[in-house]
Parts: sequence; structure tokens; C-alpha cells
Amino acid sequence: MANYNLKNILNPIKIKELARTWINEDVSSFDIQGFVVGDTPVTAIIYCKQEGILAGFPFVQAVFEELGVNPPKFEYDEGTFINEASSNNKIKIASVHGPARLILLAERTILNVLSRCSGIATKCHRIGTKLKEMSWNGRLAATRKTTPGFRMVEKYGVLVGQADTHRYDLSTMIMLKDNHVKISGHENIATIVPVVKKCAGFSCRIEVECSSFEDAHQAAEAGANIIMLDNVSAIQGAEISRNLRSKHPSILIEASGGITETNVYEYARPEYDIISMSSLIQGCPSVDFSMKIIENP
Amino acid sequence: MANYNLKNILNPIKIKELARTWINEDVSSFDIQGFVVGDTPVTAIIYCKQEGILAGFPFVQAVFEELGVNPPKFEYDEGTFINEASSNNKIKIASVHGPARLILLAERTILNVLSRCSGIATKCHRIGTKLKEMSWNGRLAATRKTTPGFRMVEKYGVLVGQADTHRYDLSTMIMLKDNHVKISGHENIATIVPVVKKCAGFSCRIEVECSSFEDAHQAAEAGANIIMLDNVSAIQGAEISRNLRSKHPSILIEASGGITETNVYEYARPEYDIISMSSLIQGCPSVDFSMKIIENP
Amino acid sequence: MANYNLKNILNPIKIKELARTWINEDVSSFDIQGFVVGDTPVTAIIYCKQEGILAGFPFVQAVFEELGVNPPKFEYDEGTFINEASSNNKIKIASVHGPARLILLAERTILNVLSRCSGIATKCHRIGTKLKEMSWNGRLAATRKTTPGFRMVEKYGVLVGQADTHRYDLSTMIMLKDNHVKISGHENIATIVPVVKKCAGFSCRIEVECSSFEDAHQAAEAGANIIMLDNVSAIQGAEISRNLRSKHPSILIEASGGITETNVYEYARPEYDIISMSSLIQGCPSVDFSMKIIENP
Amino acid sequence: MANYNLKNILNPIKIKELARTWINEDVSSFDIQGFVVGDTPVTAIIYCKQEGILAGFPFVQAVFEELGVNPPKFEYDEGTFINEASSNNKIKIASVHGPARLILLAERTILNVLSRCSGIATKCHRIGTKLKEMSWNGRLAATRKTTPGFRMVEKYGVLVGQADTHRYDLSTMIMLKDNHVKISGHENIATIVPVVKKCAGFSCRIEVECSSFEDAHQAAEAGANIIMLDNVSAIQGAEISRNLRSKHPSILIEASGGITETNVYEYARPEYDIISMSSLIQGCPSVDFSMKIIENP
Amino acid sequence: MANYNLKNILNPIKIKELARTWINEDVSSFDIQGFVVGDTPVTAIIYCKQEGILAGFPFVQAVFEELGVNPPKFEYDEGTFINEASSNNKIKIASVHGPARLILLAERTILNVLSRCSGIATKCHRIGTKLKEMSWNGRLAATRKTTPGFRMVEKYGVLVGQADTHRYDLSTMIMLKDNHVKISGHENIATIVPVVKKCAGFSCRIEVECSSFEDAHQAAEAGANIIMLDNVSAIQGAEISRNLRSKHPSILIEASGGITETNVYEYARPEYDIISMSSLIQGCPSVDFSMKIIENP
Amino acid sequence: MANYNLKNILNPIKIKELARTWINEDVSSFDIQGFVVGDTPVTAIIYCKQEGILAGFPFVQAVFEELGVNPPKFEYDEGTFINEASSNNKIKIASVHGPARLILLAERTILNVLSRCSGIATKCHRIGTKLKEMSWNGRLAATRKTTPGFRMVEKYGVLVGQADTHRYDLSTMIMLKDNHVKISGHENIATIVPVVKKCAGFSCRIEVECSSFEDAHQAAEAGANIIMLDNVSAIQGAEISRNLRSKHPSILIEASGGITETNVYEYARPEYDIISMSSLIQGCPSVDFSMKIIENP
Repeated sequence: MANYNLKNILNPIKIKELARTWINEDVSSFDIQGFVVGDTPVTAIIYCKQEGILAGFPFVQAVFEELGVNPPKFEYDEGTFINEASSNNKIKIASVHGPARLILLAERTILNVLSRCSGIATKCHRIGTKLKEMSWNGRLAATRKTTPGFRMVEKYGVLVGQADTHRYDLSTMIMLKDNHVKISGHENIATIVPVVKKCAGFSCRIEVECSSFEDAHQAAEAGANIIMLDNVSAIQGAEISRNLRSKHPSILIEASGGITETNVYEYARPEYDIISMSSLIQGCPSVDFSMKIIENP
Repeated sequence: MANYNLKNILNPIKIKELARTWINEDVSSFDIQGFVVGDTPVTAIIYCKQEGILAGFPFVQAVFEELGVNPPKFEYDEGTFINEASSNNKIKIASVHGPARLILLAERTILNVLSRCSGIATKCHRIGTKLKEMSWNGRLAATRKTTPGFRMVEKYGVLVGQADTHRYDLSTMIMLKDNHVKISGHENIATIVPVVKKCAGFSCRIEVECSSFEDAHQAAEAGANIIMLDNVSAIQGAEISRNLRSKHPSILIEASGGITETNVYEYARPEYDIISMSSLIQGCPSVDFSMKIIENP
Repeated sequence: MANYNLKNILNPIKIKELARTWINEDVSSFDIQGFVVGDTPVTAIIYCKQEGILAGFPFVQAVFEELGVNPPKFEYDEGTFINEASSNNKIKIASVHGPARLILLAERTILNVLSRCSGIATKCHRIGTKLKEMSWNGRLAATRKTTPGFRMVEKYGVLVGQADTHRYDLSTMIMLKDNHVKISGHENIATIVPVVKKCAGFSCRIEVECSSFEDAHQAAEAGANIIMLDNVSAIQGAEISRNLRSKHPSILIEASGGITETNVYEYARPEYDIISMSSLIQGCPSVDFSMKIIENP
Repeated sequence: MANYNLKNILNPIKIKELARTWINEDVSSFDIQGFVVGDTPVTAIIYCKQEGILAGFPFVQAVFEELGVNPPKFEYDEGTFINEASSNNKIKIASVHGPARLILLAERTILNVLSRCSGIATKCHRIGTKLKEMSWNGRLAATRKTTPGFRMVEKYGVLVGQADTHRYDLSTMIMLKDNHVKISGHENIATIVPVVKKCAGFSCRIEVECSSFEDAHQAAEAGANIIMLDNVSAIQGAEISRNLRSKHPSILIEASGGITETNVYEYARPEYDIISMSSLIQGCPSVDFSMKIIENP
Repeated sequence: MANYNLKNILNPIKIKELARTWINEDVSSFDIQGFVVGDTPVTAIIYCKQEGILAGFPFVQAVFEELGVNPPKFEYDEGTFINEASSNNKIKIASVHGPARLILLAERTILNVLSRCSGIATKCHRIGTKLKEMSWNGRLAATRKTTPGFRMVEKYGVLVGQADTHRYDLSTMIMLKDNHVKISGHENIATIVPVVKKCAGFSCRIEVECSSFEDAHQAAEAGANIIMLDNVSAIQGAEISRNLRSKHPSILIEASGGITETNVYEYARPEYDIISMSSLIQGCPSVDFSMKIIENP
Repeated sequence: MANYNLKNILNPIKIKELARTWINEDVSSFDIQGFVVGDTPVTAIIYCKQEGILAGFPFVQAVFEELGVNPPKFEYDEGTFINEASSNNKIKIASVHGPARLILLAERTILNVLSRCSGIATKCHRIGTKLKEMSWNGRLAATRKTTPGFRMVEKYGVLVGQADTHRYDLSTMIMLKDNHVKISGHENIATIVPVVKKCAGFSCRIEVECSSFEDAHQAAEAGANIIMLDNVSAIQGAEISRNLRSKHPSILIEASGGITETNVYEYARPEYDIISMSSLIQGCPSVDFSMKIIENP
């Protein structure tokens, strides 16, 4: 049976391209530090210094690979929660062996990736775990509020944290919001959805942002697959959901807008299939990592 | 007299390249939403929904420009502190007019840039202001702990927040740390600095990480321009600084390592020329922005 | 009300990138022909010389735009069927005015785009029209059998021909085939779909390739959204479909594999929601176009 | 003695770039299918399902190489005619061994390349063979009517099919047509050719499109190396050729324009050195290939 | 009649790509100097400070264009010989008006282009003029000894200096040297040329490097279009040429190898059609240019 | 102890990118020569044919590596002076073994790199050596007058020749010239430097171009780190330097402008810390190299 590993969803070409872009960003011309240390083989240890979920390994590997360094040896599986790590108790998570100057050239980039990706996975995991403990069986989802150019790593961190990426970009699901209705000149969503379906094709889902039962019902009738209840209170939304499901049993209901770690648990109700939160990625705290060259590997 | 404007430090070619990368990231193939709204000209308003320093304008402009949309009209100068903004009191900061589908295509990207860049500027400004109020005349500086691929926007946010970018990358200043000494095989920094200076040339500064007066003295004697006291307490570091300056009046002293918004003010002493904090960028909270299409522009 | 125009689904950045790649492909170094004709302004007429659906206009426009030439003036809407065109009766479809050498530099590229894109739209339209005339209300769909690097134009041609693009790439819908089951080590699809759904998220559809009712039923029970009946006869498939729908009324049924313009009409039955044919794109005949400089514009 | 192999004309850098572009086109973000199958090593067989000339091997190899998969083992030389292949009798042409998810990630791309490239080689070979059987010793040539961005593969297919690529692009031979004369302001070609020769240099051939003996004679006198008789009947062209050769024995004569598989054999006369046909590439039928994972390699 | 202008041979897409690469090379991150001067509109004058042929204008224009600055106004046509220029008598050759910071950002790049391109044009012109004064009617040609990545500008400079570019790259003419014969396993060139011709097609010239009449004769018999006599004395080569032409009147003879400005005039004999010199480009002296902002435009 | 090797300052990603760009420049489409020689393994010897300093090895290695050829074996260290080389006595400097067609495909590119890079290193070394023999202890520096797109190789050649690269680009040191003062609207440099320092940060040096003691003094008072005396005679500059140093002992003095190999030695005085010359790179003569395939490796 296949060994399920999230790294297998990544396009190897794309992550190498990212790795090259990142390295070039950190060495605009010459690296005099590389002259000082030379290419003597050394061993470096990567430490986790803060509790969290480990994430970002395939990107770390791609950085070393593009520099011609052998892949690091990881001590844990990606997705492991390192709960004992702290600034006073740094936990070895990987070692890497290669020419000194290349190891140091990669250092800042790989630590930056790990910090950010693990920070996201950690937050997703923490909230997701608590939602499950509340017996909620829906999906906690991120949004498109990501760092421009870095979405692949951030959405990947969401998956490592066992949350749902939501749509990847504008091309991977149709989402219709107030602005679309307003500009389209249609009076309501009912007449827009058929137009969209024609063009989008059968392989693409359609989600419609609504703030009332009437809107949601209309959208569902017109063929929407998912209703996003935006900026509706948890209670009101639940009522809309119940009404809607009685007529459209296969519709999915997403709660969204203004949901933070503080109030997310109010939405842990069976009436919601999806809860989306931008702060799973945007402004999410990082996890601290460091790297040290060791004397006697 | 020239009107000083930070946007003038940006390479127009680079920011257009970033803009194109970002847009492509959000539209991998077709944008069916664009089909719904068409290219009817509309006006959109960009709002700030959280107090903070506005930052990231040139990147927003580049995104619209690359899509062939006229530049947005900003209501405030970049760097303005919008203190009255909140989720209940959103403040109009710009308007933009153009084909509906292109405005919406840019929406998520430009909001993501503004949120992140303004978040960084806001944190830099808040801490920097307080340090100045304590009559500290040194420089608050960021580090290279940035989001891979997004450093230009983040370091720019630091400048808008009136902090110091620190070195941009490995090529723009020499920094020698423990790892370098250890690997180089030299017994101490004294013999390394001349080697470095030979290769680096006169146009490049040299900073050396030290944790004792002896190390710092040795480095200064050898020709270092800046001494970074890493993980030394504010008090100990100040003493090292006084001793060092008595012999090397032009040396600069940087405090670094483990400095957060909680303890940074302990370092606001005349013995420090620079205080660097990675959290000015890494894990920094964002500022909330949104965009709305208006009916009657 | 918005004027629906397929060009509005295109990412302007991507089509400019394609245009630049194409032009560079046709002028590897110097264009001596450009020296002969100079940059005198001229008017060129683009003719259609074969009956067909016009398609590819936004790409033609991007090529001229990237060369700094004003957009061509089209005489017809994209999607128009030019039935009177032939090699003896060439129909003017557009004119373009600009520096002679740039018009001629673009000539071969834009004609190649029009020929291929219109060829695809024409075939899609011809078959689709006949299917509609047979009162079939399903969707005729293309496949991923496209020319590498040119998929955007080809899938766009499919839309102009009013057919369905099917999934754009491996990332825009999950499709599970025999190979996946075999390699995964699962005994059947029933246990795979839940695994996939976990990772894919709610925004992504899942299609499963089946060749028997048992497989299809299992897949539908497991959560598949679409069943592709591959290499099953039109009659057998219809029976499977009826049985399946009686238990899973919202499931979609796709007929696929070995369907050509000769036998496609056998599948025009209510039991099929989708008929997919690779030959809508692969090996599809082109439509002939030409360009002429005119003396007196 | 060197083993002549067409793959040796390819620039390894360019074909890798193409391979990366193609893979990225087919995996815009995540490949969930890869998650299902994992990276277990598997063996896949590539089959030919239609009679034809095998072509495109170096591109297939580049795709696998860029994904880090070992090169496929081909059972036939490129250029072999597989005459027994059909949809009922698929012929194994290659096997490839590697991580399951990478093999499947490459599948559609490499089949698309093989289908198109082999389709072109097959048509070139079929017509070329018949022309040789008619004892014609000239060269059958393609044109620049290629798929934008895919010309390298298509012109390569022409070579595998033992036809002539004709000029690769606008930079690799000078071709002067009516449009050039008209725009240049010269009265006829006689005064243009010397201008061109000055700029083009001695390393570049010059071809002139003509439709009468007078024009052709003038062009030859002026220094043209090749005369393209465009849209002249086979008989008329032959007469022009005879007259011209009597005065310019080293001139080459190309028949072009409106030549299809139906009428090409009329031009198989000693008076023609070259016959060019755009349909060797444009609108050319593909050859069917497929790939299967095997249980017991 | 068309106004012949060498700029019309350039691919606008390529020269913009070059311009962007060059600008990025000179501004790796921020341009603080731009902050000092701001975007006040200024006028700058470009001066020539050394006698020479002006060359490189289209590249200068592309640099300004990519920065969004209006094209410079040139006071002379490209190709003009500025004989009165010296370090004491700088001659205004162009003015450009635009935002101060963009003008200064472009400064070093455009001066570097002008200096190098004009240097090459000047040397080509000086030697070419003298050869013409000796009544030699052949072509003075450069070689592929160019600066990697900068060939387009350098070969363009050759054309501005009225010399011949020789083949642009490995793809634009076939050249067979000793190494090719040796490796191919053929005993001599006679049997190789037919092989090459088969693959190269009719649109491509074939040149063969020879050092004796026997070799040259063999090559000509086999179908070579040009014979390069490499490292043969001017006298010996002339004799070979006479003998060869008596049998192959249309063959071209190129003198090459070790020809410098000192000995080139020995080859100014009717027996040579082409004289090639690598030093027209490689190691060629530059022409000095400078730029100044003026107070009162 | 680390083995100091200049190659360790190079970013492996960047030099591979350069290598790919260079190869693509020399093979725009097909390489028919590669067809003739095939991929038989051969050994090639690289010879130096002119006395000089060897430079450019890491770039040569990158070219072969990108083509999949094993690294060449160098007979000398980079930086070695080959004094016995001449056109009659070519010295073997490296051998490389690999497929014939790839070796020949790389040939021209690697020779062009070696010729140019070694030419620069040779000139830097010759002048630098003589300056040291005159007991001058300052630094001989190049400028930004480089070949656009090729600066990395040229600045690297400067380092191999043991000279100083000066600032790499506009981002790696601040340099303020007359133009900046004039445009800024400030009356003199004294008020500009503080503005610059604010924005540039502590990690960046500031150099000011001056032509009198008054200007230089003002700049030094304002915080400049380096004074460039431009177009001041060696004697006058020395006097300014003495006066300035008496007040600003740590200031650096650079002589610049109009310094050539003829007059550079006049500046070899203790009053100068740096002498910069653009002709170390611009218009610098090349060193001649060649490559031969050998029969019996």
C-alpha cells in the first residue's frame, strides 16, 4: 500500500524554481563569507526552538538539492508535533552534510521556510484539533490571504496542519460575491449561475457568497455547490443552513468572515461543513528554528 | 528641492517582475469570474480596516500597471498612520478605476501586499517611536528573517516604518559569526578579517558577531566596522560597548538575538548604535484592508 | 448587464508571456526582412480562407500589443461561423495598421494561432451543434491531449466552440484511474476516495474511471462526483448510468475513450452528462488564414 | 565512425527548458493524484496504438530527466516505422521505471509529444517515400506553419520523417515575397537583393517568391539563391524552371502554395528541387500512444 | 521607398529582455541614490568623448523605454563618424528628458552599451574603409568570438560598422573543421558533406575549413558553398583560391586565422571573398561616452 | 584551515543561469555539426596561447556541468600566471572528456569566457604588481564600466587579478556625484549625507565625489566614509588628502577619472587609499585560448 506523504503532491519543477528564486534573493552578487569558510565538508544540525508542527521539508530539500548538497536527514516525519522544544531546549530535527559554504549559503533561506511553514501548520493543527475534540466533523479551511509569491509553501503548511487549503487560486473554483452580482447587472444570483456553469464546465465547483436564506436558496436552486455565509453570526448562519439543507441536502455550507482563533469555536456546529479563517496564514506567528555547524559529526 | 519619496529607491523592472509573478500565482489558467463581470469600467475603493502605517503603495501600483489599469489615486501619503481605522470604521485610502474583471483580478494580490507591508511598517514605527521617546538615538533594524521571495516588499515596509533594513542579503555586507571562525580553522577573528577585507574590497562593511569584550576588541583591532553582541544581556553589552569605544571610537555596536517587543526597551541605551529584531518582519501581524466596487463613483 | 466575452477569462500577464515566447521563437537573432521593408506605416488585412468558427483573437491582439502595434480591428465577433470562406473566396476578418516590419514580423505567428484555435473551435462547434440537434442536453468535452505549451490557446478554442474544457490540468480536478488503484495498493476505489477527499479539500471535484456498474457504484458510494465510463459501449454505459442514477441521483456520468466524430452520436443519450473526445484538439484540422498588405488602405 | 543520430542536433538546455514548461503547464499547483500513488517504484510501458514512424524520443527523455526519473528504455530506434500497431494490437515501444507519482505526472505530457511528433514524421515519411518511388530526387520540405512555442518538436519530427525543415525562422534564411517588394518601394526585386545581401552577409541564403519567368530571372540575376514558385501550376512552373536553369544552372527551384497530399505528386518532376507543404505539420493527424503501469515488471 | 535603418532587423521583444536583464544587473535591491534625486523631471545630455562611429542606439532606447522614460532625441544618425570628439571636446549626441532617478538609474548601462557597440563599429569601419580604398570588393567579417550574453549588441555593432556578421551562431550555417572530420571517423570531407546536407536542408549554407588545395577541392566537389582557408599565408591562399575557382566558379573563399589589423591588408586581394577577424569584436577598444544633467534644458 | 578559493564567492544558481543563457545564445535552434560528430566520447585539450593570468574556471565548469559533461581537469590553479604561452607555444591548461557533440557545443562559449576573464585578470595583475613594487599599499579598483549582462564574470576576473571590485552595483554602496547634488536642490553635500544615511542604513558605505578640499571636508564632516577625488591631478589630490586626513583620520581617499595604464603610477602615493581605473575592464585586451580534440587521450 502506498505510503501517504504530502510531499508527493508537489510539482518537483515548481519547487526547484522556487528554491532557485529564493537563493538568488539572498546572494545578489558575491558571497564573501563563502570565501572565508571554503568548501570543506561539514555537518550542520537544524534545531527547532519552539513547540510546533514541523512543516516545509520538501522545500528545504529542494534548496539543498539545487545547491548540489545531499538531502538532509530528518529525525522526524513532517507533521510531527515537537512539544518539548523551547529556546532553552532546542530539539535536533535534521542534519545535513556538505561543503561549508553551500550549507551556510542555504541557512537563512531554509530556516525562513521552516519557520513560516511550521507556524502555519501549527496554528491549523491547534485549532483543528480543538474543533475535533468538540466533535465537529467539518473542515477548517484557509483562504487566499497569503504572501504573494509564497502561496505554495503556505497552502502546503495548511495541509501539513491537516486543514483544508480552500481553493488554490481564481482558476480552481468559481466564487461569486456581491461585487460580481453588482457588476454583472443581473438582479440576483439565480440568473448568473447558469451563465457561469456554461463557461466553467462540469469539472469546476461553484461557491456563492450569501448573507440571507433567500440569497442562499436562490443560489442553491441555480446550481451552486457551496454557500459561503459571510459575516453572518454563528447562530443565524446555523438557521439558514438548516433551512437550506432541508431543500438541498447535498449543498455545502461555509462560515467565513471575521472568524478568529477567539470566536471560531462558536461555529463548531453540525450546520457548518466548512469554517474558513484567513488568519491560519495571514499574520500567523512563526516557529523558531536555528542551524549550527558541529565540530565532531 | 527633491521631494523625498521612498518609492524612488525601487527598481521599476524588479517590481514589475514581482507583480507579474504574483498575478500568475493567483490565476493559473482561466478566470471564469472575469467572464461574469466583463470589462465594464468600474470604480473600486480600497479601505483600511485596522489602525496602522500605510505601506506598499508602489507594489500596488505595479500590479495595476502590469494589468493595464490606470494607477490608483491614493488619499494618503505612504507612511501615514491611520489611527482611526477599525473593522467598524473602515477608512478609504485609495480608489482605482478600470475594467471590472481586471480590478477584481488584482484585488486579492494588492490587499495581500498592503496587509503584510503595512503590518511590518506599523510594528517598526510603533517600537521606533517609543525608542525615540526614550531619547535613544540609535537605529532599530530588521534582519534577514524574511519570507523567501518577498524580501523586497518586507524590507521596504521596514523603511516606511522608519527603521533600518540592516544588510539586504549576503552580498551587501560581510558578517562573520561563530560558524565562520569555527570552519575557517583560524583560532580567532583577528586573522580572518584581513583575509576578508582583501577579497571584499573597500566598499563593503564588515560586522563581527561577538559575545565578550576580548572577542570584540580583537575584531575591532583587526578592522571590523561593526560589532554585533549576540545574546548578551543589555547590561553586559553596555559595559563591553563602553570599554570598546574607549579604544575604538568609530566602531558601531549592535545588540541582537532574542530581542522582542517586550524587552527591546532595555537596550535603549547610548552604548548601542543598533538594535536588531527579527520579529519586525518574521511573524509580524498584518493590517486588514478590503476593496469594494461602488455603485456611483 | 455585462457583455459576456470569453476573452475576459484570460490572464493578461500569461497571454503576453505566450506572445513574447512565440515571437522569440520566430526571430532567433536578426530579421533582415525587416530591414528591407522598414517601419513605414502600412495596413494589412487578415483573411479567412476556409469555412469555420473564428477563434484566437485575444492572442492575436497580445502579439501585436507586445510588438507595440495598435490592436487589429476585427470585422466579426470571435465565435462567428464564416461559412462562405474558401480558397477562392477569402473573407476579410480583420485589419491592422502599423510599422511594416512589425506587421510582417507578427504575420506567421498570428496566422498560426488563428489556424489552430479556429480549427478546434470549428470541430467543437460542428459536433456540438449536431448533438444539440439530436436534443442531447449534456456537455461535449475535450481532454488533456493538447499540444505541450499551447494548452491555453487550445482549451480557449474549445470554449469558443461552445464545448467544455474538461479539467484544465492535474491540479484542477482529481481523476482516479485504474493505474491509481493498482499502485495505491487499495483493493478498490471505495477506500481511496476518502483519502483523496481529505487532501483535496472541499473545493475540488473527484472523478473516477470505471468500467462496470460495481466499480461505479462503489466509487459513488465513496464520494465520487463524476463517473467516467471508459471504453464501454454506448449501450452498456447507458445501462450502468441508469442503475447508478437510481441510487445516486446527483452523480454525473461521462462517456470517454475511443469516441470519434464517427461514433460520437451514439452517445447522445440522456444517460450521459458528458461525452469527452480527445480529437476535438489532438490531430484536429486547422482553418486557413492569410495576411496581405494593401496598397490603399 | 560516428553513429548518426538526430538527437545530437538538439540543444540540451533548450529541450530541458521545454520539458519544464510542459510539466508546469500540467500541474499548476498540487497533484493530489500523486498523493494517492506515492513514490513507490513502478514500471510503466509505453505503447504505440496506430501505425506510424516513432518520433520525439529526446523530448520524452528530457521530461523524465527533469523529474529525476531514469531515462526510458526504448525498444526501437527513433524513426522506425511501426506498421503492425493498431488500437487492437498495441506495440510496446518503451519502458520506464521510477517513482509512481512522477511517472504518472509525466504521462500525459510525454504521450502528447509522441503523438504529435510521430504524426508529423509519419506524414513526411509517407509522402517522401512515394516521391522517391517516383524517382524524384528533390527535397520535400515543411514550412513555418507550426504550433507557436512547439516548433522545435515539430521541425524535429520533420527530420525524423526524412523531410527538409526549410528555414527554421525569420533569422535563418532571407525570404522575399510580394509584400516585401510592395512595401520596399522598389519597382522590382532586382534592386532589393543587393541591399539585402549587404546586410545579411555571406552566410545567409536568399530566396525570392516569384510567379513568372521574368520575375524569377530578375531575382536570379540579382543574386537570389532559391526561387520559390508560389501558386504556379506544376506544368507552368516546370517550364519556368527549365528556362531559368539554362541561364542560372546553380539556382534552386521550390514549388510552394496549395500543395497537399492529393496534388503533391504532380510536382515530382526534375524541374523542382524542393516541394514545400505546410500540411506536413499544420493540421497533421497524430499517432496514438498510451502508457500502462505493469504489475510484474 | 523604405528608409533603410539597421534598427529594423532587431526583435523588439529580445532587446527589451536584454534591457531588463541589464538594469536588474545594476540595481540588485534598492537604489538609495534615487531617493536623493527623486523623480523631478530633468534633461540629460549624452556626450561622445572620443572619435568613432556611433552605434547601439536601439539598445539605449530600449533601456529608457523599459524604465518608462521617453525615447532620447539623437543628434546624429546611428553609424555617423564623430571625428572631432575627444576628452577635451565632448560632442553632444543625444538628450533625454525624464524623472531624475530613472535617468541616473539608466546612465551606466546605456553608456556601457554605447562604448562597447561603438568601439566595435569603429574598428570595423576603419579597417573596412581602408580595404575598400585598396579596391578590395570582398567582405570583412567578424567571428563568434563575442562576449557571452552580449552577442546581439556586438554583431549589431559589426553591421553598423558596415562589416559582415559572419554566421550568428551554430544554427545559422554549417561549419566543418578539422575536429569534425577527425571525430566523425570519415577519412575526409568528401563523404561528410552529403550527410550534412541531408540533415541541414537546402536553406543552410555549408562552409569547410581547409588548409590545402586538395582538401578545398574535395570539399567543393562534395558540395561545400564556402571554403575557409585557415592559417594559410595570404600568398598561398590566393593560389589555392585561383586553382579552386577555375573548377568551382561560384565557390566563396574566406581567409581566416591569425589576421589582425596589422596584417589584414595583405589579404586584400581579389582571390578572397571574405576576410574574417575575431579582433573586430574580441578585445576591441571602446569609445568613451558620458552623461550630464543640465541646469537649463 | 580553509583553502581560500575565489570560486567560493560565486552563487552556484547564478552561474548556472549564466551558463544556460550563453549556450542558448550559441545554438538558437539545431546544431547540425553535432549530428556529424555524434556523442562518441572524446578528450579535448584547452590551451592558453598568450601570456596571462588564468581566470574564469568556475564559469567554464558551469557550462560543462549544465551540458551534463564531467568537469574539466585543470592543470593550473586559477590565478596562475602563464608566462611562457604564445601563439607558437600553446600551453595545455585543462582537459575535458565527454560526448563529442557536447564538447564542441561548449567550445566557443568557454573560450570566450576564458579569453575575456583572463584578459581582465592579467591587466589588473600587471598594474597591481607594479604598484606594489613601488611600495604602494593602497587598493587598485575597477569600476562599473562593464559589459552589460557579463558583470559577474568581469568583476570576478578583477578579483582573480588581485584588484578590488569597487562597488558591485548601485545597491552595494552609496555614491554621490555632482549630478546628485545638483538635482537634489541642496546647496552642498553637507545636508544630503544625513538624508542618505537615514535611508541607507548602517550597513552601507557612503562615498562622495569631490574636486576640492572644501567639498571633501564638508562631505567628511557630514559623514561620508570615502572621498573620491575625480579628475584632480595626482599632486593636487595628494595635498587635499593630507589636509583631510589631518582632520578625518579614518576617511578613505580614492583617485579616479582619466587614469590609464600610462599615468596610474603617478598616483602610487601614500595619500591615496584607492586608485580606480575603468580600463581594467572596459576595452581590456583578451588572452587567446583554443581547444583541440586529441586522437589518443
